[in-house]
Amino acid sequence: MFLNVLSTAIGLVEDLAGPQHPEDSLVNHSEGQFFLNEAFKIIVDEVLNKGTDVQQKVCDWKEPEELAQLLDLELRAAGEPHHRLLERVRDVAKYSIKTSHPRFFNQQFAGVDYHSLAGRFLSEALNTNLYTYEAAPVFVLMENEVLRSLRLLIGWTEGDGIFCPGGSTSNMYAMNLARFQLFPEVKSQGLCGLPRLAIFTSSQSHYSVKKGAGFLGIGTDNVILVKVDDGGCMIPEDLDEKIALVKSQGTVPFIVSCTAGTTVQGAFDPLDRIADVCEKHKLWMHVDGAWGASVLFSKQHRHLLKGIERANSVAWNPHKLLLAGLQCSALLLRDCTGLLKRCHVANATYLFQQDKFYDLDLDIGNKSLQCSRKVDCLKLWLMWKAVGSSGLEERVNKAFFNARYFVQELKKRKGFYLLHEPEFLNICFWFIPPSLRGKEGNPDYQEKLAKVAPAIKERMMKKGSMMVGYQPLENKVNFFRMVVLSPLVSQEDMDFCLDEIERLGNDM
Amino acid sequence: MFLNVLSTAIGLVEDLAGPQHPEDSLVNHSEGQFFLNEAFKIIVDEVLNKGTDVQQKVCDWKEPEELAQLLDLELRAAGEPHHRLLERVRDVAKYSIKTSHPRFFNQQFAGVDYHSLAGRFLSEALNTNLYTYEAAPVFVLMENEVLRSLRLLIGWTEGDGIFCPGGSTSNMYAMNLARFQLFPEVKSQGLCGLPRLAIFTSSQSHYSVKKGAGFLGIGTDNVILVKVDDGGCMIPEDLDEKIALVKSQGTVPFIVSCTAGTTVQGAFDPLDRIADVCEKHKLWMHVDGAWGASVLFSKQHRHLLKGIERANSVAWNPHKLLLAGLQCSALLLRDCTGLLKRCHVANATYLFQQDKFYDLDLDIGNKSLQCSRKVDCLKLWLMWKAVGSSGLEERVNKAFFNARYFVQELKKRKGFYLLHEPEFLNICFWFIPPSLRGKEGNPDYQEKLAKVAPAIKERMMKKGSMMVGYQPLENKVNFFRMVVLSPLVSQEDMDFCLDEIERLGNDM
Repeated sequence: MFLNVLSTAIGLVEDLAGPQHPEDSLVNHSEGQFFLNEAFKIIVDEVLNKGTDVQQKVCDWKEPEELAQLLDLELRAAGEPHHRLLERVRDVAKYSIKTSHPRFFNQQFAGVDYHSLAGRFLSEALNTNLYTYEAAPVFVLMENEVLRSLRLLIGWTEGDGIFCPGGSTSNMYAMNLARFQLFPEVKSQGLCGLPRLAIFTSSQSHYSVKKGAGFLGIGTDNVILVKVDDGGCMIPEDLDEKIALVKSQGTVPFIVSCTAGTTVQGAFDPLDRIADVCEKHKLWMHVDGAWGASVLFSKQHRHLLKGIERANSVAWNPHKLLLAGLQCSALLLRDCTGLLKRCHVANATYLFQQDKFYDLDLDIGNKSLQCSRKVDCLKLWLMWKAVGSSGLEERVNKAFFNARYFVQELKKRKGFYLLHEPEFLNICFWFIPPSLRGKEGNPDYQEKLAKVAPAIKERMMKKGSMMVGYQPLENKVNFFRMVVLSPLVSQEDMDFCLDEIERLGNDM
Repeated sequence: MFLNVLSTAIGLVEDLAGPQHPEDSLVNHSEGQFFLNEAFKIIVDEVLNKGTDVQQKVCDWKEPEELAQLLDLELRAAGEPHHRLLERVRDVAKYSIKTSHPRFFNQQFAGVDYHSLAGRFLSEALNTNLYTYEAAPVFVLMENEVLRSLRLLIGWTEGDGIFCPGGSTSNMYAMNLARFQLFPEVKSQGLCGLPRLAIFTSSQSHYSVKKGAGFLGIGTDNVILVKVDDGGCMIPEDLDEKIALVKSQGTVPFIVSCTAGTTVQGAFDPLDRIADVCEKHKLWMHVDGAWGASVLFSKQHRHLLKGIERANSVAWNPHKLLLAGLQCSALLLRDCTGLLKRCHVANATYLFQQDKFYDLDLDIGNKSLQCSRKVDCLKLWLMWKAVGSSGLEERVNKAFFNARYFVQELKKRKGFYLLHEPEFLNICFWFIPPSLRGKEGNPDYQEKLAKVAPAIKERMMKKGSMMVGYQPLENKVNFFRMVVLSPLVSQEDMDFCLDEIERLGNDM
């Protein structure tokens, strides 16, 4: 078997490239680069040209069974020729959702930035693992610099941090750090024998707080949900009362996870007033700014995050509002004592040898829960270099400008009702179809209204004209949540969105 | 401020592209694509041509201070022109480690596969978040198919699974699932009030088992290390005894984390015999096959994993031996009862609405601890389509063939000593420099030997000729760990490696 493989290999190489590396037939550089080049052209054509063209569909909807058949997903013993593989590249692009399309309003990662994308291609080609200086000299220094620059926007001239695979993980890191600071022995001894611990967060916070509580062994029941006002912002008085109550029951509170830009309503918790409560009770203050922290770039809007500099930790996803591309999530810490490293260090001798010839503080892998960790800093760094802080500020301001335009136009139309005047880029609203207008008093009104958004969503998906999310929230039945963030979005696109909802829901 | 930004925007667009989308100046497609195209050429030239050419350096070593200055990392208010940004792309490539170079033997992610790389570029361009069918129709189906195909190699015709951001996370998922299966109430109530839990793993297992125990609130002290034989394989008899001992002390064992391909020695724990012990004690059997599971592709070598089909879960990183590219880590489960979803579900109403128009089982985000999750299946799928299972089998066989050649050549040379006859692709060996040969009896022999590998490593890094890792292990002082996996590696490269160590250590 070995000999067969080898002789085939040698045979192939002699035909194609001469005998210098007689065994390299398994990777042929010239064929490989030809393929990559052709694939690159398809990517530019399908994803970056057609995929951002308003004349094209956001989504070429297929039923799962049909799509599976179209894609011929099955993996087989034999390989396929290049032309077939290039068709596959085209098919994958064709049937994927065009998240960079100006009419993708479904989630907080819309839009495309070409500088970031170039950084992402470079990261992928370099295939670097970000754990030691010797393996990733450029990226160890670059990550430190990007984190430092993000911290400066918070108002911290010192501190620590790390890029994590998403905001949920960043939030979980914060919980683990807060727990470790209070009970360092948890790392070695576990929670067994400790009192019950409690986490406080608003009822509108991201679901990762509960996921994290489950994963960390704290328990989802020990996430105490604090009340919010109509806009979705945490009420500090309720936080204070709930902390006192929990303490009186013998449970130990250790962290308040605030939200700067909630997922549904885009609400900003009042950080300054929550910081007062945290100081009073000596609790770790975490800010989940996955969505909203990018507002710090804007002199005009950063007041929404007043008090963030008093937090102990901040989760910040530049892959959302800044368009850095999935995934780019920073956890930023005010701590300067090496808490992150002490909390996560495992001292693997094969990576973090103590007798290296360079400064061991550059081996940042000990700060991470991951061993292999992708490079997420380059795409943000290159984009930031390209447009500067002022360009990122413009991007944030532009998003606010667009969102306000949408709200203004929505208010002019019959049948559209806001849940609440938005302070950020999420616009939550109901569309009341003609048959339900003026029927608010009917006993089945809410039940009927609840079915409108899902039905319109199904129609827009099958038509492929745009994508907007919907959901219920507490006692409010299904409403649309429009997220306006991509600089590609024009006023025309927003007008189209309102028109299209009217068109699709006109007969309901 | 708003008006300024807008008027500037309109001004720019009128000059360049007409007024159809008056606000899209913040992303200019033609300029952006021109930049991306130029960056792509640099990537091909620097990373894929020079970076894989044996005549070029693996590493252009710079001291951190000098490198920081060369890179001009600082982020500023103003953006930079394209030619400057392209220089930055070139600099990042130039000073990064060439992990695809045939003389990068440092870690388990060497080599390049162009089909995978095309898949990675496409994933990045599409910028898809893998949580719902509506957001990621192609990738929901594709991930399911890739996981199914990997499970078939284990021997499971049914089951479950998910791609995680790295093997450490996959291992942590397994621990959480095992705990949840035994004590479902942990998710809601936490560990408070439960007995002490214990995890069993070999003393040579990956450090993520301890990291996970710390993070999950179990405690690193509750990771019980089982003895290994000289080759680094877990001794099942010691496992059985330690489980019995821990039980007698009132602690509750819940998982055995075996290793298929240890990080340092590349050892395979005897899975079949460990499965017997797990059955006897009714424990969850996890196999950390991050490094070694890819051997399942090879009919010739898959006997190393005999018994893996008896495991409850397997972690498998195709980004290592199969060259799929960072990150590509699958957690595979034998469970068919939806354990993964029950363990992690949080039912966020804005993502996982229950009134959708398609099968809700396709919304796989509830299986994940992450909310935004990158697409890691496409690169593996496209590569697998390109070379087939038989091509991946050849890749595995070739790596074994190369490693055995290296061992055979090493044995012919003076001054090289193996720690142990390797059964996999990690070759652990000492180089004894001329001055230490025949001095084994001297009291300072070990102390002097310990300094040899670090000194040679420093020299190879500064020269840039190759990269090989080193470390101590228990009572064994620093030795080299050579990892041979890339199909780019020729016999000439391996001969060079031995020659170069002799050259660099000749005066010691």
